[in-house]
Amino acid sequence: MVRVTVWNEYRHELRDAHVQAVYPEGIHRAIQGALQPHFEVRTATLDEPEHGLTEAVLEHTDVLIWWGHMAHDAVEDHVVERVHRRILDGMGFIALHSAHYSKVFLKLMGTSCSLRWRDDGRHERLWVVNPGHAIVRGLPLWIDLAHEETYGEVFDIPTPHELVLVSWFPGGEVFRSGVTFYRGAGRIFYFRPGHEAYPTYYHPDIQKILVNAVAWAAPTNGPAPVFGWAPPLEGTPTT
Amino acid sequence: MVRVTVWNEYRHELRDAHVQAVYPEGIHRAIQGALQPHFEVRTATLDEPEHGLTEAVLEHTDVLIWWGHMAHDAVEDHVVERVHRRILDGMGFIALHSAHYSKVFLKLMGTSCSLRWRDDGRHERLWVVNPGHAIVRGLPLWIDLAHEETYGEVFDIPTPHELVLVSWFPGGEVFRSGVTFYRGAGRIFYFRPGHEAYPTYYHPDIQKILVNAVAWAAPTNGPAPVFGWAPPLEGTPTT
Amino acid sequence: MVRVTVWNEYRHELRDAHVQAVYPEGIHRAIQGALQPHFEVRTATLDEPEHGLTEAVLEHTDVLIWWGHMAHDAVEDHVVERVHRRILDGMGFIALHSAHYSKVFLKLMGTSCSLRWRDDGRHERLWVVNPGHAIVRGLPLWIDLAHEETYGEVFDIPTPHELVLVSWFPGGEVFRSGVTFYRGAGRIFYFRPGHEAYPTYYHPDIQKILVNAVAWAAPTNGPAPVFGWAPPLEGTPTT
Amino acid sequence: MVRVTVWNEYRHELRDAHVQAVYPEGIHRAIQGALQPHFEVRTATLDEPEHGLTEAVLEHTDVLIWWGHMAHDAVEDHVVERVHRRILDGMGFIALHSAHYSKVFLKLMGTSCSLRWRDDGRHERLWVVNPGHAIVRGLPLWIDLAHEETYGEVFDIPTPHELVLVSWFPGGEVFRSGVTFYRGAGRIFYFRPGHEAYPTYYHPDIQKILVNAVAWAAPTNGPAPVFGWAPPLEGTPTT
Repeated sequence: MVRVTVWNEYRHELRDAHVQAVYPEGIHRAIQGALQPHFEVRTATLDEPEHGLTEAVLEHTDVLIWWGHMAHDAVEDHVVERVHRRILDGMGFIALHSAHYSKVFLKLMGTSCSLRWRDDGRHERLWVVNPGHAIVRGLPLWIDLAHEETYGEVFDIPTPHELVLVSWFPGGEVFRSGVTFYRGAGRIFYFRPGHEAYPTYYHPDIQKILVNAVAWAAPTNGPAPVFGWAPPLEGTPTT
Repeated sequence: MVRVTVWNEYRHELRDAHVQAVYPEGIHRAIQGALQPHFEVRTATLDEPEHGLTEAVLEHTDVLIWWGHMAHDAVEDHVVERVHRRILDGMGFIALHSAHYSKVFLKLMGTSCSLRWRDDGRHERLWVVNPGHAIVRGLPLWIDLAHEETYGEVFDIPTPHELVLVSWFPGGEVFRSGVTFYRGAGRIFYFRPGHEAYPTYYHPDIQKILVNAVAWAAPTNGPAPVFGWAPPLEGTPTT
Repeated sequence: MVRVTVWNEYRHELRDAHVQAVYPEGIHRAIQGALQPHFEVRTATLDEPEHGLTEAVLEHTDVLIWWGHMAHDAVEDHVVERVHRRILDGMGFIALHSAHYSKVFLKLMGTSCSLRWRDDGRHERLWVVNPGHAIVRGLPLWIDLAHEETYGEVFDIPTPHELVLVSWFPGGEVFRSGVTFYRGAGRIFYFRPGHEAYPTYYHPDIQKILVNAVAWAAPTNGPAPVFGWAPPLEGTPTT
Repeated sequence: MVRVTVWNEYRHELRDAHVQAVYPEGIHRAIQGALQPHFEVRTATLDEPEHGLTEAVLEHTDVLIWWGHMAHDAVEDHVVERVHRRILDGMGFIALHSAHYSKVFLKLMGTSCSLRWRDDGRHERLWVVNPGHAIVRGLPLWIDLAHEETYGEVFDIPTPHELVLVSWFPGGEVFRSGVTFYRGAGRIFYFRPGHEAYPTYYHPDIQKILVNAVAWAAPTNGPAPVFGWAPPLEGTPTT
């Protein structure tokens, strides 16, 4: 059974009454609730020791989900290194919404990961542009969210491996909202929706995408690369 | 100097008064006018012998631009084969608007190239999502066209080599409007705008994109592949 | 359970004694044997009515495997159309070895699919270059085949969606031997090894790749695109 | 005229007699000599103040070429940041040979950039696999280098934007030797050959690739992204 760790900064929910009203136990609990029927799910938050991401926790994590916003800088660099190394070794990584600016995502991308934004709480429509992708299994052709923050292009990421979803916003913007990347043996999914002030993570189609994304990002157990000096491999094999 | 052939179906302009009002000499002449200062530009149309695309014409064409809509089926298969072969040999190919359903484009893509559409003459906003691409040299971050046909996803094309422009429409759709592909040694650019009833090809930024796209699609003169049986290539070279 | 149809031209095995010695019941039976423990597997061959690929068979096929070589032209165009349409609708397609020149593969690619070759029966080494890909689950970093035909670049295919395996040959060639493509909702895997005169399809690692590839290519059941005229989708949603 | 800066670590040439014999004035001078007829070329080396890469130098650099090997760690982080920022803003970057482990390249890639290697001074054959790419303009289908270091897959880089060249080595390895990436508005080319002990950078075809790569990587002067809070863009435009 795939083992998921949902990491949440967990500060907005403790400080802002209107966020607490939406996610009284934290965004991580809402996501855990959605994934629990399908996977083995634990949570971790910024203010736990080691941000809840010890070597032992990561070793038992197949897919790490990350939500962060106001305290990206508070994540310690040695934990970022640890998470990054695990991803290259095959752990899946799902970066949600404002996690585009998290240290881990920045390190994986190598770009500024900047974008246009406007917190207007208006409509977002997510269009499926790659209906053959495993992440949109069982989804409709588009998903409407009544209230979300607006993000707009240019989104300064490397060319995604796969473009799965593109958002439309009534203020005139478009955004590559569901994009995948490979780094090492790890699979990465960035998924745009999920501003802390709106009940996005309770939406059944958003939950379905998260379930699909975890299944997609789980390690594939391919061969472990051997790096460094290597002997020649000559000679005709006998098999 | 890059040699361009602008191919146009040239039927709407001869039959529909409102199209003729916009393009009195045909869409091909409007595009020729835009490209002329930069390249050597000829035109060809469906009702010329061989559709104006003889071996000789193609041999002297570096980049072929294609506009078609109501008479895709009237294009003869042997001409389609000829154009296709030239593209694989390195000729650039720019498919405009409803040319997504042209025989040549379908043959290059291998998919249905279907899409959603609605001819409502409303606003289109083209967003640059790849500001480092040569096709958007000198362009603004977005282009507004007051009146255009609406296209919407899913656009059934193979994953593009490069996604350069994404359109936003007020009716709620998004569309991958500027996409590139390699096929053989040929470079292909599909560019969405250009419904026959609107003066899209007179817009200075649209013209600039066409100029850039021609320069980008011109043959690169790399090595010509040698196919078929080949001798072994062993032995340590001496240089 | 994933339903596989293994299609084989099945002519070399009936005509050439040295091929019959290797695959007495045909290449399709060897592949069926490898897949049977994991999937529901039927076979079809060129000389059956409709080449064994009736509408009914295709409707009950999740992944179609294709081996052909000397009789590509004998495959009727209406069957090619049928197979092509099913792939766009989501059926997986695995093209083996000389199936690079099959009508179905050519139609999917839009290029010449030509390559260099030399039937010298020498060594092939397949290197995994994408160890995170599901197709190399459980594989070693490289696979040695004692006797195979040599293929060499340039392999005239569109840029693959994913490059999984690259072959090394002692005669000095390299070849992109394991490559994936999306077309419509269908996933396509081209896999180079498998000349009829060598026992390649009995090799346990080759069989493992075929098993993985079938699992990878099975339909994902995403949303079915709706094409054509579409009404506007305006108005703020209420959910 | 495109302005190039050739950066070289320049330590092997000063310490190792056999390297000095090959590149008496340093690798940077050999490369400068090859590029000079086509571009405006300056050089910079590790032991100059600021490693020769001041803000002023970078501001006047369109394409930066990087050769480093034994002293990657001696490159100061603030210079790495400066170079990285300039690349995202559009400066081209060409990483040569062991620069796969340079701090700048690692930061751009987000992976370990590790590989297999063996300094055996044997034959390398570079195959063109993308004959339509501008970087192989005027080249033959393959290039033989009599003596080079061997590199082998797995090369732990993100999926390249474009795969242009694949190397074959007599010891049984293959390697993705010419690969491109976009990061921000910057274009990146990694090019494998160029061990310090062999006269690789004097080879006319290698020089041709470097010339082509500089032309390809030069800034395209697309629109500069505007990031951060943005006003809505509603309303039908009037043009």
